[in-house]
Amino acid sequence: MRLIWTSFLLLLHLISIGQTKTTTSDEDAFYIRKIYDTALTQGQCYEWLTHLTTKIGGRLAGSPQEAAAVEYTRQMLDTLNLDKVWLQPCQVPYWVRGEKEQVRIVNSKSIGSLDLKALALGNSVGTGGAGISGEVVEVQHLEDLEKLGSKLKGKIVFFNRPMDPKQIRTFNAYGGAVDQRVFGATRAGRFGAIGTLVRSMTTRLDDIPHTGVNVYEEGDKKIPTVAISTNDAERLSQLLKKEIVTVYMRTTCEKLADKTSFNVIGEIKGSEFPDEIILVGGHLDSWDVGSGAHDDGAGCCHSMDVLQIFKRLNYQPKRTIRCVLFANEENGLAGGKEYAKISNEKDEQHIAAIESDAGGFTPRGFSADADEAVFTDKFRQAIEWLPLLEPYGLYFEKGGSGADIGPLKSQKALLFGFRPDSQRYFDYHHTEIDNIDAVNKRELELGAASITSLVYLIDKYGIK
Amino acid sequence: MRLIWTSFLLLLHLISIGQTKTTTSDEDAFYIRKIYDTALTQGQCYEWLTHLTTKIGGRLAGSPQEAAAVEYTRQMLDTLNLDKVWLQPCQVPYWVRGEKEQVRIVNSKSIGSLDLKALALGNSVGTGGAGISGEVVEVQHLEDLEKLGSKLKGKIVFFNRPMDPKQIRTFNAYGGAVDQRVFGATRAGRFGAIGTLVRSMTTRLDDIPHTGVNVYEEGDKKIPTVAISTNDAERLSQLLKKEIVTVYMRTTCEKLADKTSFNVIGEIKGSEFPDEIILVGGHLDSWDVGSGAHDDGAGCCHSMDVLQIFKRLNYQPKRTIRCVLFANEENGLAGGKEYAKISNEKDEQHIAAIESDAGGFTPRGFSADADEAVFTDKFRQAIEWLPLLEPYGLYFEKGGSGADIGPLKSQKALLFGFRPDSQRYFDYHHTEIDNIDAVNKRELELGAASITSLVYLIDKYGIK
Repeated sequence: MRLIWTSFLLLLHLISIGQTKTTTSDEDAFYIRKIYDTALTQGQCYEWLTHLTTKIGGRLAGSPQEAAAVEYTRQMLDTLNLDKVWLQPCQVPYWVRGEKEQVRIVNSKSIGSLDLKALALGNSVGTGGAGISGEVVEVQHLEDLEKLGSKLKGKIVFFNRPMDPKQIRTFNAYGGAVDQRVFGATRAGRFGAIGTLVRSMTTRLDDIPHTGVNVYEEGDKKIPTVAISTNDAERLSQLLKKEIVTVYMRTTCEKLADKTSFNVIGEIKGSEFPDEIILVGGHLDSWDVGSGAHDDGAGCCHSMDVLQIFKRLNYQPKRTIRCVLFANEENGLAGGKEYAKISNEKDEQHIAAIESDAGGFTPRGFSADADEAVFTDKFRQAIEWLPLLEPYGLYFEKGGSGADIGPLKSQKALLFGFRPDSQRYFDYHHTEIDNIDAVNKRELELGAASITSLVYLIDKYGIK
Repeated sequence: MRLIWTSFLLLLHLISIGQTKTTTSDEDAFYIRKIYDTALTQGQCYEWLTHLTTKIGGRLAGSPQEAAAVEYTRQMLDTLNLDKVWLQPCQVPYWVRGEKEQVRIVNSKSIGSLDLKALALGNSVGTGGAGISGEVVEVQHLEDLEKLGSKLKGKIVFFNRPMDPKQIRTFNAYGGAVDQRVFGATRAGRFGAIGTLVRSMTTRLDDIPHTGVNVYEEGDKKIPTVAISTNDAERLSQLLKKEIVTVYMRTTCEKLADKTSFNVIGEIKGSEFPDEIILVGGHLDSWDVGSGAHDDGAGCCHSMDVLQIFKRLNYQPKRTIRCVLFANEENGLAGGKEYAKISNEKDEQHIAAIESDAGGFTPRGFSADADEAVFTDKFRQAIEWLPLLEPYGLYFEKGGSGADIGPLKSQKALLFGFRPDSQRYFDYHHTEIDNIDAVNKRELELGAASITSLVYLIDKYGIK
């Protein structure tokens, strides 16, 4: 797909060579160069991210850390001398992990007892203080559950389909495996299973469990579910080839009453078309383990830096540029939904929105999405800018954008997902090691520069 | 430049759409996909690199570790069932660091004494056991030395021009600063300076000194030279704004007698055109600090994996595919020179050579170089393959290739430099932290896949 669009662009480009040349693109190239220079020498994203991750830490929706992050980022936006900074309240679920999970092979004839490295999955119910024990049944696919049917009664189901290492983009491998984590428990519960273990979502073999959201579908029995590290998943699977394995699991996680949280918003008003909004955003919440450096502290700090860079350059946008740090992306999307609801009520018009939620790695480009009726026309306009972004290693492609900005499709906005290099993302995603030492300062700054450059072009030329 | 070539390619591509479609590119796409699958699931580069870095370590030319690395890689190539594996002897310089360097501010009124994090530069003479003391004079450029002239007599010259963080590719920033490290001492010695301190070659601000080669030009006085960490360079520079600073330095490094080392070589003979050689290579030596994981263990393991992947796929090349692990790239280039000399004596014909010496990071593409008389024609042939490599995020551009393969220009070979993402390279380059934990397995494997794919295309279609 990408090749076709690139060819199309270059056809346009080749045609344009034959036409009268204006200086516009030279001016734009010059300005984009200035944006990169500023990001690489006076960017603030790394400093902000260091604070967010080392002074505040994991920021699960509803938690005190999330409240601290809301206040910190509001203050930081406030230092930028923007036209407006505000908090937009929304109701978020509040799930707590409770005591350290215990997951233990208790009966193996060959290896005796073995503790597995485990993390309860988000929104999971707990096992109760006494814990549960059950024989383990390994499956690869959700569909396997139906085949096994009543054999699952009283069992602990172990979902062990690995992410496909052959995918070049790791997000595709994630997309091909994550159904086990999201729907494994709710589906297994239908057949009388008492709990589930899920292989962590990473292509690495290591001892680090990856948490993430679990969803119970309406009417299903809620059974407890935990992720185990890939090394432990391999071990357990080997063991199951030889013998019947019983696992004991104990989790005290639970959902408490909903809390009020906030989307943190700052904007520079447009001078000519203030009603045309260009949104840049990430999500401020993270999981409770680690400190959400790549997911998605990076995206928040990218988005704030877009405004910082424009202010530092004394850039006066024609259109309104708005930075939104969304609440509760990880386990509910309350922030994104509330933002779109209020925006629609106010009859706002977002002409474009860019979400950075794929980490703070070296930028590769942007994927674009929009309502089908307008996509081709709008994307064609964006593609004309590619020669200005290509020297910085950026491409455009058709694809998803971001979970928080998705609802803005109804406003016919052109939605972009920032796409950094994906190879290392799932080494850290939803783990205790997603910390600032996993983030390279230059890579993060280049992300801010890339997004700022795209916003500059959208602001200057608009999207009709 | 890149854009122009890309446009040119896509013009070819667009033209070809109108012509009869053969299945060639489908077959090639299929085979390249198989190469990637194999690299990502059965690649051995990460395993080899782990051994090389954790069991052998830093491999400076002439050292016992380098000898161990020669033997290990020869054995590993020997396991691949190649047509020929051999060692090619060459004479290498043998420089040793000696005792831990001491570099110390000894007289500051404001901060008292302070040890600076320092590493002697490669090939530097030592200070003698008693060390030397001198007043520090800070300069930014080699040209500043002439202006200061006789004022440098008896002084220690401090080269403190930072790598330019605004460069998008860090190698350009390195190229713009490294003259201080390579020629600082030899030039300062001409004006009677007694030693030099050089700011480490990295855009990071940290406490890690970066070593690297220092060259004394013929006839110049050899004065000792050390690199200091960027944090210490900043500190020292601040101090010099306020007061006269004297530094004591003591190094016991020295050059011992030359030793015999080896290029390690393995090849699969071509079935149709055995005399047309396609070379893939890296350099097996590294600096003595750290374990040369990215520089250039990665490139060696990439190159060996090219042969491993072809053997695993039972690929029978038409042309001879030769893997060369060069000796002594870091401080003398003896391996590259000897290889070209012998090759020329044997009247060999290298049609292409690819060097991987820019780290084991996510691949971005290849730069290409050749003798001016043949470059355009040969590069045009390569560019026709780009649509097959672009889906894997790869580009071609005009640029340098590699220090070891450079001499093959005289054989009219098309020379390629493998170009991975460069953002993190100078965090590790020539330091004690260039170790396996800085290497991501997938990124390394993708490098092997990229190089193997390019070799496959060169082998299949040749370059005339």
